[in-house]
Amino acid sequence: MTSKAKSVNKALDEAVPLCEPVLRIREAMRYTLLSGGKRVRPMLCLAACELVGGQESTAMPAACADEMIHASSLIQDDLPCMDDDSFRRGKSTNHIVFGEVIAVLTADALIALAVKKLATSTSLGVPPERVLRAVLEMAKAVGTEGLVAGQEADLAGEGMSLEENEAGLEHLEFIHIHKTAALLEAAAVIGAIIGGGSDEEIERLRRYARCIGLMFQVVDDVLDVKKSSEELGKTAGKDLVAGKLTYPRVMGVEKSREYAEKLNREAREHLQGFDSNKVSPMLSLADYIVNRQN
Amino acid sequence: MTSKAKSVNKALDEAVPLCEPVLRIREAMRYTLLSGGKRVRPMLCLAACELVGGQESTAMPAACADEMIHASSLIQDDLPCMDDDSFRRGKSTNHIVFGEVIAVLTADALIALAVKKLATSTSLGVPPERVLRAVLEMAKAVGTEGLVAGQEADLAGEGMSLEENEAGLEHLEFIHIHKTAALLEAAAVIGAIIGGGSDEEIERLRRYARCIGLMFQVVDDVLDVKKSSEELGKTAGKDLVAGKLTYPRVMGVEKSREYAEKLNREAREHLQGFDSNKVSPMLSLADYIVNRQN
Repeated sequence: MTSKAKSVNKALDEAVPLCEPVLRIREAMRYTLLSGGKRVRPMLCLAACELVGGQESTAMPAACADEMIHASSLIQDDLPCMDDDSFRRGKSTNHIVFGEVIAVLTADALIALAVKKLATSTSLGVPPERVLRAVLEMAKAVGTEGLVAGQEADLAGEGMSLEENEAGLEHLEFIHIHKTAALLEAAAVIGAIIGGGSDEEIERLRRYARCIGLMFQVVDDVLDVKKSSEELGKTAGKDLVAGKLTYPRVMGVEKSREYAEKLNREAREHLQGFDSNKVSPMLSLADYIVNRQN
Repeated sequence: MTSKAKSVNKALDEAVPLCEPVLRIREAMRYTLLSGGKRVRPMLCLAACELVGGQESTAMPAACADEMIHASSLIQDDLPCMDDDSFRRGKSTNHIVFGEVIAVLTADALIALAVKKLATSTSLGVPPERVLRAVLEMAKAVGTEGLVAGQEADLAGEGMSLEENEAGLEHLEFIHIHKTAALLEAAAVIGAIIGGGSDEEIERLRRYARCIGLMFQVVDDVLDVKKSSEELGKTAGKDLVAGKLTYPRVMGVEKSREYAEKLNREAREHLQGFDSNKVSPMLSLADYIVNRQN
């Protein structure tokens, strides 16, 4: 996983060169994109491609594209009108460093570059109909079937008491199926499409990714409660203060942990049809997500 | 042109149905997308497709996609952190009606839907490699090679006196080649790609569209100075107050008018290689743009 993350970091670095014309936006893109994320989405994309028999290298543009979409969503989430966060991954957030105007434009630029990057996969020999199908999956993950729907639901639920928000767990699952899981799903599905997976393989990987996507969020919510601001590198306990719906708030910390374990088991079940010699990267990824401490 | 605009309006209406789950974002998308724009970009896209021998109907998804990108850019331009405009096309701007959070998300959702819409052109029989090439053109028009670069330059130039902004006309042309012309170029080029135009035809239409794109902006700037707020349906004279670089500010109103005429002549020259019986929609479009009063 470390070597995969290194290859991804190198590819991301090369994807946003500081070329002419010199734009603040390019600096701002690099600032968030290269600020040391866990690269879970790209690794998932590469692993999915390999699992269905494709070559890892052909999925690298798609893997970079997934991370660009993720970076774009982080920049937006932190904006003053959204979560108004000034601290992420131990660094000032994009709009604090570059200002709100550049941050908004940078989020757009990253989406555009993601689409462009993905669309150039044909230069690595991926048939255009596969690339186009991958582009469609990505567009769905970004729009009203994915991220933006999750973000609307997330912010709409903010400040509500649990009594006011009767839907509770249902509302929470809607948020994270759209907000967190959608992009992890897209990463796995896109990797599998690029790698030439069958429809059945693609759907199994979609279900696996949805499980680890939700699990990722449950673990994130638990960590937010547990860790101090310093250790976590972002403003901790903030979700609680903002009155956000979180798993610990809806079901308590212990039950949240159990739910994460349940999702981990389900994720593994969806992998059962695949060659057991080839699923280890997927299993490691799930274990990494459920056991991570930051 | 009226009948083309009607078909476009119908297709746009159908492209954003108010389906489940009910999202404020979908209402907000419809609010700006269906608020009666001139539909110049879709008409350009359809006309380019027909001019190179394609069927107009196959370019309709692409034409809608162009208008979605345009609507997205309008919503963003009007945001408090950008131009802070509360009035456009005789109506309150998106963030005034729906709030800043929804406006930001709506802009994303429109970009995502545009990509999705364009990618579905294959269902009308357009070969995937053409559609993918069109997707690439659209991504370029949105990102650091297009809109966002223009918007950064536009806002960077704001408030500067002409003495401070030594580049003057050069800076202004950079802004509008990227901000206004890039999307008109993309509309024409995408239409021509979908229609199966040759590389030479595509490039000629690109140059034609760049001319009418710049012309569109020159006319817009002149109108902004001339018209009252009521007549124009947006906050008029605002560019002057904000100290924006505009054509009248850099070269005066009379010279701006002459420049628009020059661009109109150049645009016509780029059409000379095409069948003279088939270019009339393009000529009408250019005349419409140079003569428009609002």
